[in-house]
Amino acid sequence: MNPPTPYTPVEQAIDMLLEDADVKVETETVATINALDRVLAEDIVSGIDVPPRDNSAMDGYALCARDCPEDGTVLAISQRVAAGQAPAPLAEGTAARIFTGGEIPPGADTVQMQENCVANSDSVDFLKAPREGENVRRQGQDISKGATLVTAGTRLRPQELGVIASVGISKIRVYKPLTVALVSSGDELVEPGETLFPGQIYNSNRFTMQTLIESLGMQVEYCGVARDSLTETKSALAAAAEKGDVILTMGGVSVGDEDHIRPAVEALGGIKLWKIAIKPGKPLAWGNILGKPFIGLPGNPVSVFITFLIIARPWLLKMQGCSSLLPTTIPVTAQFSRAAGDRVEYLRARLTAGGADIFSKHSSGVMTSTSWSNGLIVNPIGEAIEPGQMVQFLPYESLLH
Amino acid sequence: MNPPTPYTPVEQAIDMLLEDADVKVETETVATINALDRVLAEDIVSGIDVPPRDNSAMDGYALCARDCPEDGTVLAISQRVAAGQAPAPLAEGTAARIFTGGEIPPGADTVQMQENCVANSDSVDFLKAPREGENVRRQGQDISKGATLVTAGTRLRPQELGVIASVGISKIRVYKPLTVALVSSGDELVEPGETLFPGQIYNSNRFTMQTLIESLGMQVEYCGVARDSLTETKSALAAAAEKGDVILTMGGVSVGDEDHIRPAVEALGGIKLWKIAIKPGKPLAWGNILGKPFIGLPGNPVSVFITFLIIARPWLLKMQGCSSLLPTTIPVTAQFSRAAGDRVEYLRARLTAGGADIFSKHSSGVMTSTSWSNGLIVNPIGEAIEPGQMVQFLPYESLLH
Repeated sequence: MNPPTPYTPVEQAIDMLLEDADVKVETETVATINALDRVLAEDIVSGIDVPPRDNSAMDGYALCARDCPEDGTVLAISQRVAAGQAPAPLAEGTAARIFTGGEIPPGADTVQMQENCVANSDSVDFLKAPREGENVRRQGQDISKGATLVTAGTRLRPQELGVIASVGISKIRVYKPLTVALVSSGDELVEPGETLFPGQIYNSNRFTMQTLIESLGMQVEYCGVARDSLTETKSALAAAAEKGDVILTMGGVSVGDEDHIRPAVEALGGIKLWKIAIKPGKPLAWGNILGKPFIGLPGNPVSVFITFLIIARPWLLKMQGCSSLLPTTIPVTAQFSRAAGDRVEYLRARLTAGGADIFSKHSSGVMTSTSWSNGLIVNPIGEAIEPGQMVQFLPYESLLH
Repeated sequence: MNPPTPYTPVEQAIDMLLEDADVKVETETVATINALDRVLAEDIVSGIDVPPRDNSAMDGYALCARDCPEDGTVLAISQRVAAGQAPAPLAEGTAARIFTGGEIPPGADTVQMQENCVANSDSVDFLKAPREGENVRRQGQDISKGATLVTAGTRLRPQELGVIASVGISKIRVYKPLTVALVSSGDELVEPGETLFPGQIYNSNRFTMQTLIESLGMQVEYCGVARDSLTETKSALAAAAEKGDVILTMGGVSVGDEDHIRPAVEALGGIKLWKIAIKPGKPLAWGNILGKPFIGLPGNPVSVFITFLIIARPWLLKMQGCSSLLPTTIPVTAQFSRAAGDRVEYLRARLTAGGADIFSKHSSGVMTSTSWSNGLIVNPIGEAIEPGQMVQFLPYESLLH
């Protein structure tokens, strides 16, 4: 027996992976309206002020405040400014009828809302004298010309697309999707829809992993199941290296007689085997196959789910050009207890009215726990969790995107 | 002047909308692998046990525990069971070499991990006697035949697809995407990429709203800008009613001279105008256009963003067949102060190490606040917020999906 390999801490594993990773994809120009969830490859700088000129925040009357020093002042209405119309300069001592978004006429500095006015046929009675500058949205108040609005590396949400559109930019440069070649491993795997014979199980990992990668905005080339022989595993991995920018495998990374990923990758490139201080999870392989970056995830469905989200996800996002790699963590109150362990444990957790609870079934390998839960709670090494204690919660929404 | 319309509370508005909404889409059968983010239209019931038979959680040796009462027992190896192979019954008083996932031979009840054994050419020395049942994953331990795994109305995440695949189901029934006809309103709107003339602004709302709806897994039919005349607005809305299952408009729902949505919808169906107790936001229209459900959102970019997420989103999700309509809220510590108001305020907030902070710019109408932030904090009616107080946080990730 060999001496036991020491555990690699999770943070150290992530740091080493990220240090080695760089952007693996080219850029392309797309229409802003089609850029949801794409990763921006340029800084977006505004070429205009927003609003482009002073405009009205309300339906009402534009005036020069000093022409209306007291309640009850009456001014003649000299023009009508709807949104989308260019106003004329305001005739001295008059008011302009104006609507929300309408441009403030030169010479006016204030808008009184219509609720504080009584309109006559050609004049307006200001029941209340306005405060100078009231209800005017200033030129450049929201965005000033030359301001950087969104930086390269941002994954674009609807609100970023709205901001980019608000300064008139209809085309932007984004990264092309990273192509991930995905390889299953194991003689026992059968595809859903087929008959299950004794000793076999359904290949569910492919479904979880392919759609997890797609959730990150990447493309998947599914390369099938590498059967349990060195020759078959080598040819499956060589084919995957042709198809993907990077390669992910599921299963076959232990050191058992039936685990062929290690010798196959050794023959085609280079591999490091880690025992990560993570639970569930632990065995993880990392290296290259014919020069393409490679991670080998474990085969247990919950382990592959957790190690993908915690370890492989930031590595893939970096190669996709993203600047934000780690998920949001939010402190919540534990409503459960959990013993201390010698690996960081990622507990499947569900938010409740008073905090968060964890999946109760004994086996940590139960995949239904991932569907029951809406995030993960981190149980650090050597720390027991007691009810009422604050713990770190990672919402799935921030991990799955 | 009319007496002021009373505010409609946010919860009451949502309740009324939801009461009136029902599923507006048909179902279709799709491959499980292509069902990410789709809404399930049937309960998924397992036809099998998972695991289908007892199997091994480790690489090691399967045996009957009573054959190994003490440390140092040696047993002959009578067979070798790899994953994917059907084992023979275990010959009495022997052990079977077994690998992770391998099916436990009939007659064996326990697996000792290989780290606690020394293998000889045809026998194995158990350095440690195993506990009965150790390292055996029981038939049906994860999922038992007949169990309901995922219920109709669930929006499918990668982990649900993995669970569905793990019981061999390759095709599932889902709802077709809801088609949302989207109409902009306002003479001042210009599409990004075009030249901005005085009095005009870029139509950014279309970009935010179209991609928000797409984020929910729905389809958008963008119907262009209804210009500020009753005739044009009526014909734009009638065309939208042809194209969509439901209709959303942006802008034109105030009661100003230039707001034509109300009379146009009145002529084509029915409309209710609400002043919602929400900030930013407030004006909201609701009704039907030629029998199709309709919501009219305000025109201010931040107001449209907030009212969509808080009010229109659950209404659309219900018509899409979703069972979970309201977003996750998480209590966080306020690191800011905010005065009490007479409407519920949704503050653009960002999580920090110690809690959450809010966007500092004075104008609540600044769209960059939505890009700066990663969620909303709820400031209830009549309650001031002080630093250190617990407040409700709605992560964008749970609102945008």
